[in-house]
Amino acid sequence: MNGTNRHTSSDLAGFFKPRSIAIIGVSRSPSSFGGMSFLDHFLKAGYPGIIYPINPRAADVRGIRAYPDLASLPETPDLAMIAVQAGAVPAVLQECGRLGIRHIHILSAGFGELGTNDGMTLERRVASIAAEQHLLIMGPNCMGPYCPATKLTAWGAIPGRDGRLGIISQSGGITQRLTEQVSSLGVGVSKAASIGNAASLDSPDFLEYMDSDDDIDLIAMYLESVRDGRHLFDLARKVVPRKPVVLLKGGQTEVGAATVASHTGSMAGNRRLWNAFFEQTGVTPVSSMNEWADAILAFSSLPKAGGDGLFIIGGGGGNSVIFSDIAVGEGLTVPQLSPASMERVRPIVPVAGSIAGNPLDLWESFVNGDRLCDLLDVAYRDPQIHMVIVDRLIPRIAFHSPEMPDPTPGIIDFIRTYKGRKPTVFTIDYDGGDMDLNAQGAALRRRFCEAGIPAYPSFERAIRALAHFQRYHRRLRRRTSGGIRPFQRGHTPDNCKDC
Amino acid sequence: MNGTNRHTSSDLAGFFKPRSIAIIGVSRSPSSFGGMSFLDHFLKAGYPGIIYPINPRAADVRGIRAYPDLASLPETPDLAMIAVQAGAVPAVLQECGRLGIRHIHILSAGFGELGTNDGMTLERRVASIAAEQHLLIMGPNCMGPYCPATKLTAWGAIPGRDGRLGIISQSGGITQRLTEQVSSLGVGVSKAASIGNAASLDSPDFLEYMDSDDDIDLIAMYLESVRDGRHLFDLARKVVPRKPVVLLKGGQTEVGAATVASHTGSMAGNRRLWNAFFEQTGVTPVSSMNEWADAILAFSSLPKAGGDGLFIIGGGGGNSVIFSDIAVGEGLTVPQLSPASMERVRPIVPVAGSIAGNPLDLWESFVNGDRLCDLLDVAYRDPQIHMVIVDRLIPRIAFHSPEMPDPTPGIIDFIRTYKGRKPTVFTIDYDGGDMDLNAQGAALRRRFCEAGIPAYPSFERAIRALAHFQRYHRRLRRRTSGGIRPFQRGHTPDNCKDC
Repeated sequence: MNGTNRHTSSDLAGFFKPRSIAIIGVSRSPSSFGGMSFLDHFLKAGYPGIIYPINPRAADVRGIRAYPDLASLPETPDLAMIAVQAGAVPAVLQECGRLGIRHIHILSAGFGELGTNDGMTLERRVASIAAEQHLLIMGPNCMGPYCPATKLTAWGAIPGRDGRLGIISQSGGITQRLTEQVSSLGVGVSKAASIGNAASLDSPDFLEYMDSDDDIDLIAMYLESVRDGRHLFDLARKVVPRKPVVLLKGGQTEVGAATVASHTGSMAGNRRLWNAFFEQTGVTPVSSMNEWADAILAFSSLPKAGGDGLFIIGGGGGNSVIFSDIAVGEGLTVPQLSPASMERVRPIVPVAGSIAGNPLDLWESFVNGDRLCDLLDVAYRDPQIHMVIVDRLIPRIAFHSPEMPDPTPGIIDFIRTYKGRKPTVFTIDYDGGDMDLNAQGAALRRRFCEAGIPAYPSFERAIRALAHFQRYHRRLRRRTSGGIRPFQRGHTPDNCKDC
Repeated sequence: MNGTNRHTSSDLAGFFKPRSIAIIGVSRSPSSFGGMSFLDHFLKAGYPGIIYPINPRAADVRGIRAYPDLASLPETPDLAMIAVQAGAVPAVLQECGRLGIRHIHILSAGFGELGTNDGMTLERRVASIAAEQHLLIMGPNCMGPYCPATKLTAWGAIPGRDGRLGIISQSGGITQRLTEQVSSLGVGVSKAASIGNAASLDSPDFLEYMDSDDDIDLIAMYLESVRDGRHLFDLARKVVPRKPVVLLKGGQTEVGAATVASHTGSMAGNRRLWNAFFEQTGVTPVSSMNEWADAILAFSSLPKAGGDGLFIIGGGGGNSVIFSDIAVGEGLTVPQLSPASMERVRPIVPVAGSIAGNPLDLWESFVNGDRLCDLLDVAYRDPQIHMVIVDRLIPRIAFHSPEMPDPTPGIIDFIRTYKGRKPTVFTIDYDGGDMDLNAQGAALRRRFCEAGIPAYPSFERAIRALAHFQRYHRRLRRRTSGGIRPFQRGHTPDNCKDC
């Protein structure tokens, strides 16, 4: 129960399954972003509910009957999307309150993010109307709710892909890209909440809701600020052991923080404080779009990691060296194989021009799927090995690659059906301007990802994702075994000797 | 003049323009890597010189007359490529010495990298024959010379692309990928030397040669070890102010160093020592394949940077925040625009939903090329701004992007013809499993790169490349203005307070 808005977290579910939506502010000018663009996208996505365009000067919009105002509607819509000029928003909110419309998304910009007194006053006004009228508000200055299962997809990947990821974000653009990127790689989205300036409902409200939502296993967040940091902290501590939370925190530098003020009109907060937040909650910190999507791919698909020992299977001595450096640099270990493993590996790795061990350098692994599966089997049985990364080189003209049938289906099948397999990821290098290699590489990547086996376009990205994943599970293991200090309730970065 | 091998650096030029090549060890087994694979690639690449396959049991190979041994050849070949079993290499070297064949590439593996006494003895034997017979040897255990201008392209990008990059590398596989990656993006290679175990000629020999080669402007290196670190250090200090050197150093971690021992049979050296090396020589340190290629792209194409002030042009508030954080995190500054610039920017950036300043958030910049060129013009005239990065978003279904003609040709033309333009790079996000977006993005990236305007598939990669580039030029500026301490001759990491 939230004091200000008097809601339980399950009340927020209403944002994602409206049977009817009123869109207030549907300009018919083709060049303007706003209600009309949302309406068009709902139509494209095949949203099955009823849409009520509100436009005082039109009888219909896109062939859909329009209404002059909310009061004229034949029913109380489940959701109101407000896209009018900022100054007109409070009146619409009052109207919603009078009519009993409880779930509201304010798309309009022009509030606190302007940095003007007027803008900030207007934003406070939104918050106070919400409290007085018991309104549940997403926004202002945001894209609002997104839910592929209900075809509530006016933005984000269209068509959406249903799945088990929840997203809470203060940037519509970034969330758009995240939903597109992960959906295109086989990871579907249960719900996304783009909450912009978060004048009323804030990220903790949605975190609490997504924690309680059984359709969500994993939560991605993009935050610029939070009003009640203590509340977020307490919640995150509770949620993380059940559901991993991957947080892209914007405004970690002075310039970034200044930009936050122009974007969502808020204070980004102190970097040390956020570092302590990550340290003590176990929330996974990422710093770019790709790192965010990459970690989500790993968390969505991999079985639990039992330790930090990585087996590197690839080809090429230089790559073996560089890959080892990168893996160790990210906090993973590259242990020696067990004597039993070495007995199996030695006969299949030539003495000259290859390396039998960990990393393992064997060109044959690029073209011979059975050989690669043998090596995976070695890894899955070796007690020193907890995770595997495979360099899946696409044969190129100047490499000495005899023509062989595509080993990919056999490899995917082997991994998927292996009982007791360990977290296994692939790296596929197709960077550059070779269009054919690029198309092959991207398609191969998607094939692995769609099969639930994360594949990345570079070794360093794969390893960073695996390191995030491994740190999360190491923390869980320590928690379970009692090896971690309990979180200090009174801890702040200023009184803690460890920060 | 090198004491051991008695050569001047220009003698090494002979490796890259042989008019005739003897390939010793051309097995006709289709599955074996070796001399035959080199022969095939020379034929594919249209190598215009004479090839002499040496095979005691064949009258011809691939329709080319073969000879039973080097002594039977009708002339002294300019280059010998040795691909026989390791144990047979010393006898071939002696034969080369007797016949006056001076330039030799040993492809064969099975030397020091085996970690056996036999292997190490054999490698020392190679070095001592080289010294006795005044042979110039690349290798063993390497791919040898590569030169697109002379169609000496048995490996690497085929067909090769001539250009002004020199490469010195202890890994054939990595060099293969580097030549492919940069060539596909418009950056050609003058010469590449894959030197493997470097038993005789070592990286400093080739660095000295490439420094003196007027066809080379920029040098990329992959090193696992060096015998005479002092010599490399002194040379690098001399070369770097004239030609940037970008070094991927393998074996920076304990596991990486152990892998180096299995790859080129050498000692990777101490990490602190290498850090001091980078610090004092100005050599640019990179740690992955993509970071290496990305920096090369920047160094190859950009005009000098006059400072570290970056202007970020993009769209989306979240991206503006994250981009700022990443840029500042990599040591660049994101300064406020000058008052004159702000006067030009304010009228074209809407008050709500955008940000007028630096970073600049304007959706119109994605679709309106003229608008983007206006902003570039602002940047090129603003004294606070020294570099520009532009987010070139490819319109997607759910973004509100009106149909507009492709602005790319106009943008490229504007930048290329602008007198006094500043270093300008693009970031194009096409990551993920959307095949159409991927194809569009990769093609767009290539278009910019081919026009000499570096473009990268993520903001973080673009910024890291720009930061390397900027650090190099900052160092040059300080050097010129006398602001940098002279390198300390007696400096070692152990006596230096700064390391």
